Amino acid sequence: MSRPAHRRPEYHKINKDLFVLTYGALVAQLCKDYEKDEDVNKYLDKMGYGIGTRLVEDFLARSCVRRCHSYSEIVDIIAQVAFKMYLGITPSVTCNNSSRNEFSLILDKNPLAEFVEALPAGRSSLCYCNLVCGIIRGALEMVNLAADVTFLQDRLKGDSVTEIGITFLKKLDEKKCRRKK
Amino acid sequence: MSRPAHRRPEYHKINKDLFVLTYGALVAQLCKDYEKDEDVNKYLDKMGYGIGTRLVEDFLARSCVRRCHSYSEIVDIIAQVAFKMYLGITPSVTCNNSSRNEFSLILDKNPLAEFVEALPAGRSSLCYCNLVCGIIRGALEMVNLAADVTFLQDRLKGDSVTEIGITFLKKLDEKKCRRKK
Repeated sequence: MSRPAHRRPEYHKINKDLFVLTYGALVAQLCKDYEKDEDVNKYLDKMGYGIGTRLVEDFLARSCVRRCHSYSEIVDIIAQVAFKMYLGITPSVTCNNSSRNEFSLILDKNPLAEFVEALPAGRSSLCYCNLVCGIIRGALEMVNLAADVTFLQDRLKGDSVTEIGITFLKKLDEKKCRRKK
Repeated sequence: MSRPAHRRPEYHKINKDLFVLTYGALVAQLCKDYEKDEDVNKYLDKMGYGIGTRLVEDFLARSCVRRCHSYSEIVDIIAQVAFKMYLGITPSVTCNNSSRNEFSLILDKNPLAEFVEALPAGRSSLCYCNLVCGIIRGALEMVNLAADVTFLQDRLKGDSVTEIGITFLKKLDEKKCRRKK
């Protein structure tokens, strides 16, 4: 398989404020387009899914991560490598059940919502950063891992932290770690 | 005036692919919302304007640029400092008239359109990256400089380079370099 690291040797980085403000414009546009918060959330997740499916190949090449043997390892890579690379933060990870397929990423701060002080009026059910859930879901699906990814807590809704829940839907040993070309 | 550099000492950088793909999702959404390319272009410019007015204060603080005494100096700062900081590239600059108020930024490559091979079908008048024009216009207006900012050439439309034209609308010496708190 070709190595994207060869095609694009630079580790492209940019100042994140432009991204954060552009993301805000995207959410504002969707709030104009869809009356119901649930529809905005769904659409952000769908957009994120598409982005995740495109980011994953390059991520795997750049990050040089090895094949993972447990969900726990996968979530650690999402938190420590992917979040660091794409959002500049490292959430902490907790495992939430004894079957070890339910995890939480705990974000003390959320750079995507940095310029947002509160949810827009009448938008109390908005998952402002739902794009992120979609991205994780899309990226996991590209390596043949089905997962539910949702916000469990959100500082924008008054919670003390922002928490993203990841529930893997099938056993890891049923899966092959396939990477699409 | 307080120094944002004190408030946010880190120089926040992130991988740009996430931004580029999110921007693509924003443009795609606007293309769904508005039938006419002109309306999409206008809306991107308007969104960019809002973003530019918010970015400029932080940019001035972080970049520590000094007061400029000519349009030429201003455009050089946009090309060499702002583009570098926010998009990771440094366009070349040309001055297009003897009054020295019309300039071009020439982009050999355009990171915002990196994943775009061609404009969507039926969207031949779309200025895909028009957000950037709005950002420049908004940022300049915040330092009391009125300007027209438009794409003059676009590789997505088959041109050999991407060229952003900046025309300053008033003489610099009529202006005060005001920075809003």
